[in-house]
Amino acid sequence: MTAVFVFGGSGYSGLELLRVLASHPDVRVAGASSDRFANEPISRVLAGFTQDLRFESHEALLERARDGVALLATPHEVSRDLATTLIERGLRVIDLSGAFRLEDLGSYAEWYGFTHDEVGLVMEAHYGLPELFPWPVAPVRLVANPGCYATAAQLAVGPLVAAGLVEPTVIIDGKSGVTGAGRKLSDDLLFSEVAESMRPYRVARHQHTPEIEQGLARLWSGGRPSTLSLSFTTHLIPIRRGLLVSAYLRARPGVDQAAIDAVYRERYGAAPFVRVLDRPPETSALTGTNFCDVTATLDARTGTVIAFGALDNLMKGAAGQAVQNLNALLGLDETRGLLPAVRPGETK
Amino acid sequence: MTAVFVFGGSGYSGLELLRVLASHPDVRVAGASSDRFANEPISRVLAGFTQDLRFESHEALLERARDGVALLATPHEVSRDLATTLIERGLRVIDLSGAFRLEDLGSYAEWYGFTHDEVGLVMEAHYGLPELFPWPVAPVRLVANPGCYATAAQLAVGPLVAAGLVEPTVIIDGKSGVTGAGRKLSDDLLFSEVAESMRPYRVARHQHTPEIEQGLARLWSGGRPSTLSLSFTTHLIPIRRGLLVSAYLRARPGVDQAAIDAVYRERYGAAPFVRVLDRPPETSALTGTNFCDVTATLDARTGTVIAFGALDNLMKGAAGQAVQNLNALLGLDETRGLLPAVRPGETK
Amino acid sequence: MTAVFVFGGSGYSGLELLRVLASHPDVRVAGASSDRFANEPISRVLAGFTQDLRFESHEALLERARDGVALLATPHEVSRDLATTLIERGLRVIDLSGAFRLEDLGSYAEWYGFTHDEVGLVMEAHYGLPELFPWPVAPVRLVANPGCYATAAQLAVGPLVAAGLVEPTVIIDGKSGVTGAGRKLSDDLLFSEVAESMRPYRVARHQHTPEIEQGLARLWSGGRPSTLSLSFTTHLIPIRRGLLVSAYLRARPGVDQAAIDAVYRERYGAAPFVRVLDRPPETSALTGTNFCDVTATLDARTGTVIAFGALDNLMKGAAGQAVQNLNALLGLDETRGLLPAVRPGETK
Amino acid sequence: MTAVFVFGGSGYSGLELLRVLASHPDVRVAGASSDRFANEPISRVLAGFTQDLRFESHEALLERARDGVALLATPHEVSRDLATTLIERGLRVIDLSGAFRLEDLGSYAEWYGFTHDEVGLVMEAHYGLPELFPWPVAPVRLVANPGCYATAAQLAVGPLVAAGLVEPTVIIDGKSGVTGAGRKLSDDLLFSEVAESMRPYRVARHQHTPEIEQGLARLWSGGRPSTLSLSFTTHLIPIRRGLLVSAYLRARPGVDQAAIDAVYRERYGAAPFVRVLDRPPETSALTGTNFCDVTATLDARTGTVIAFGALDNLMKGAAGQAVQNLNALLGLDETRGLLPAVRPGETK
Repeated sequence: MTAVFVFGGSGYSGLELLRVLASHPDVRVAGASSDRFANEPISRVLAGFTQDLRFESHEALLERARDGVALLATPHEVSRDLATTLIERGLRVIDLSGAFRLEDLGSYAEWYGFTHDEVGLVMEAHYGLPELFPWPVAPVRLVANPGCYATAAQLAVGPLVAAGLVEPTVIIDGKSGVTGAGRKLSDDLLFSEVAESMRPYRVARHQHTPEIEQGLARLWSGGRPSTLSLSFTTHLIPIRRGLLVSAYLRARPGVDQAAIDAVYRERYGAAPFVRVLDRPPETSALTGTNFCDVTATLDARTGTVIAFGALDNLMKGAAGQAVQNLNALLGLDETRGLLPAVRPGETK
Repeated sequence: MTAVFVFGGSGYSGLELLRVLASHPDVRVAGASSDRFANEPISRVLAGFTQDLRFESHEALLERARDGVALLATPHEVSRDLATTLIERGLRVIDLSGAFRLEDLGSYAEWYGFTHDEVGLVMEAHYGLPELFPWPVAPVRLVANPGCYATAAQLAVGPLVAAGLVEPTVIIDGKSGVTGAGRKLSDDLLFSEVAESMRPYRVARHQHTPEIEQGLARLWSGGRPSTLSLSFTTHLIPIRRGLLVSAYLRARPGVDQAAIDAVYRERYGAAPFVRVLDRPPETSALTGTNFCDVTATLDARTGTVIAFGALDNLMKGAAGQAVQNLNALLGLDETRGLLPAVRPGETK
Repeated sequence: MTAVFVFGGSGYSGLELLRVLASHPDVRVAGASSDRFANEPISRVLAGFTQDLRFESHEALLERARDGVALLATPHEVSRDLATTLIERGLRVIDLSGAFRLEDLGSYAEWYGFTHDEVGLVMEAHYGLPELFPWPVAPVRLVANPGCYATAAQLAVGPLVAAGLVEPTVIIDGKSGVTGAGRKLSDDLLFSEVAESMRPYRVARHQHTPEIEQGLARLWSGGRPSTLSLSFTTHLIPIRRGLLVSAYLRARPGVDQAAIDAVYRERYGAAPFVRVLDRPPETSALTGTNFCDVTATLDARTGTVIAFGALDNLMKGAAGQAVQNLNALLGLDETRGLLPAVRPGETK
Repeated sequence: MTAVFVFGGSGYSGLELLRVLASHPDVRVAGASSDRFANEPISRVLAGFTQDLRFESHEALLERARDGVALLATPHEVSRDLATTLIERGLRVIDLSGAFRLEDLGSYAEWYGFTHDEVGLVMEAHYGLPELFPWPVAPVRLVANPGCYATAAQLAVGPLVAAGLVEPTVIIDGKSGVTGAGRKLSDDLLFSEVAESMRPYRVARHQHTPEIEQGLARLWSGGRPSTLSLSFTTHLIPIRRGLLVSAYLRARPGVDQAAIDAVYRERYGAAPFVRVLDRPPETSALTGTNFCDVTATLDARTGTVIAFGALDNLMKGAAGQAVQNLNALLGLDETRGLLPAVRPGETK
């Protein structure tokens, strides 16, 4: 039983982590921090967490965390600082924030509004999207767990880009449930503002844009240096969990539906958490699971490939994928603790 | 065209007031205050408000409000203080808060947590529920606009109590949409906390309890001094607008369904805004209107009268009823500006 | 591994049964019927059902079901007929419908609109609400799984009635999410009819009324023959899962909050699935779990005991409780397959 | 007072028509048909419809409709047949279905699945999108009221295409509330299937595709024969009312944000129902109004123009626009009966 420490355990991703870890057969939650609920029993916030454990402050947990894996569901800058300290102390770290996802250091200032003083960890971090980027041979100390939109987008579009079926001009329309915005006290996240409405947000400025672009450029095999560009637009939808990306790409000459289907099948035939559908996905079918459903249709009339990726933003888009990465880190089967199907509950 | 001044114009009730007043043929919105949106055009917050007017601060509006009617959609204590000043300046006031609804001064401290220094205005205030309490002959300077639950509860139960059909032990189970809680930045009003859930709140402590009790006791004609008591429990339901009370009363011997129906018909036959249904109400049928739908069923097996009252908490439960009272204050027909049917929009 | 057969596997309760059973360590889903999805892989309807199994018709499954336990998530009359046949063939049966819940045969015609030809099975059926009614010593062949409202109502009110703390005149206001109505194609269950609305339904006619009354009467220890009567009113709330009952009872003289708390603690101290709260329940905290949260408050001002019971109508209100009963039937620990916390997913 | 006859008055668009017409100062609802509610008082279905009128069958209404304007909120094929008969009888017709929207007769079979026997009326029909296509000088007998998606899409994209600011390869991602699908009894429109979910539908096959393409091609002024092509993808969102299109276009060299803003301002400066925003639209701000909110952002990093159009699918997307066309037909100001702001109510 490996000891795991969850920092930021009372946000939506943190609670989901605790929920999943609570039924994981090979790990033991050795501590969880929450500034808001410090000293409260976890079971008070998370019905069904039967272990007798209380939240503590970040500081208290940091003080006593030794020998194990730390999962960080903290804001970007908190994660950046915690990761350095924890790795120095010999823990391995899986970070659910965006603090270590980008290789280009300049992008952090541009898209996230903070900077990294030390470059080493950024370079060292492994970007944990197992279906597209293989686990490295060298030991991993730090995993950058992908963003929710970035996971769905890369899983939907990556195989098409990698196989050279499409032009490198990518348009992605993302739609997310409200837990994707975290548990912020903000007027525009109030029930009466969100319900019975929808709206675009962060137009042309969403911080997952460079992450998706970076991933797709890595996969690109279009026969010439990648000039891959992504225009990415996000929308808030009045559901609690669930995320859908609709991607629009230009098919290369000669590409047909069969070629698209073959590329997906080949890429995901052995992937336990990506399901290739022959129909459009539905986000509620994914709630509480670590699956991502993908499918693509050639709109032959216009030469557009329409690709969809759907997932539960708190599972494959955050906590579930973090546990999948944890399994890889620990040398376990990647599905350990995540199948038949871990499903949602009181963490929204 | 009477000038009206709306204090607290950017909360949910205040916006709804502005929406209704904007299409009222006999009044003119001469000013609206909002601390949050001071200096912003009202049309920016309220799509469809075509008049060229900006929100101003409470102070600025108070300074220049003269000759007309002030409508207060402000917190209880703010209303208490504003009303005194405005009446001194010669305006008439309709207050949508609870500051002047109770006759028993002690109840304010117990249920609302504030006290009145001056008793005069409390005594003078007219409780504006026109279908049950006739407009006074003497001139009115201050109207206490009833609470949302209190309106539905008294309209549903009042006629039964007044006619002596039931015992004076009243149980009311109230259910309200989220705008009823106002536009507060509170974690438990976030979309992800409220959606796909329901919960009781303020159990046995809701501040509309003494208001309903006071009203029903006034109506009581049970043949002996009223010992009417109310147990009132409220629940938060994940809708934006809409309120339903389900009242449970003990039928007196010999009371049958026909007697119940007759009492309602007699009371509300000429009331333009109370509709007596022969089936259970549905809150969405009332959204944006000033109607209250009532009905009562005798559960003959157990001798229980089950009475329902439904309304839109922002209309008949707040702004619509305030305009109905405004009409009375101005000597207009009570439906002026409220029919065929004013309906909701961007104010949630 | 005991073989279980699920009849009616594609309704909301049936899918939930399959979801829970899929991760139960001691049973194996040996077959599932669905007229609607016959021949479709179950995984197509229930994401995350990884077993390679297809739905078949009721007839086909009935034909081959041998040696094991049958769970019936079928309409009342279908259950009535299936149960007889299956028991004749030596299977044990857990029925989630209302077909065997009532002892008084006349009540079926009155409340359900059907009759039983054979009285034997009705008499023999064990009513499976383990926290209130102990499992019999004699072997059980047929379990009547309680209704969703009936479970929450009896768990909330039962201890108070059993301890003689309240008068036997019970008023219950029930509120349910939409999956409680099943997967019926009915205009008034369409999204656009249900969302942003609430409404009472089956006023004074809900079929769980005699079931709750029967259970409470059994528990009654008021010191004289029970004349317990229940007035029960149900409301449709726009959520998918979740059920709440708010019960209103008259406290007997001398009863205080401490007495109420003690009675609950004693009754449920050892019950793994009933949690006694010191605050009002919230249905979303229960989604996907087999817990029922109960609490009661004495409204001392009026002498009313306000008791709440909340659960997930598809879990403790249907499929979860059925698995709890299955565990009892098989001599397993009652929490087997139901903890840490089985949670919801794609079955709504 | 012109007499108007509403065919198909109990679907969502039909009810919304009745709601708006009820408060229109210059017309009188002389009859309304509904096969489902024939003989029921309209006020029973539409709270707030105070006129004493009952629904009748299509046949009965067709029989007696004379001298006035007929509004058809009927299925495509019913509209096709009704229009012919009504025009023969001398009525003028506004059709809310798709029966007369397309000029290319072959498109009806391809996208709608029906054919026109008589070509005349199709050729004669005026496509009623007043902000983009001027009202003809010649008398109009038949107005084809645009589709909901088609209205938002053309209003958002039209000015950019007309001004030659973008390449003619258009990608539109549409998102609609559930009333857009009408009042069909379909399993996948049930509350429990739609709530807490979202899904694409009719991918690359939505019938508004040729309508939008036809409109944009008409407006095209790109300096060479239009080869304009549209890839259009639609998504179902769990709200009752509200529609949003997000359009993605390639900016032509040299185009900047100022040019985009200027084009919108020029086109819509005098249009009472199109509001050009400087921020993303929010659908709830439009509920119950006849406004369409548009805005466009240049994503300079990728050269993509991101244009949004939002409206209430039952108002500017159906009934409101039909009344706007009715006003034009009758020579009235186009805002007559539609401002300050008609807002929604019980028609969902």
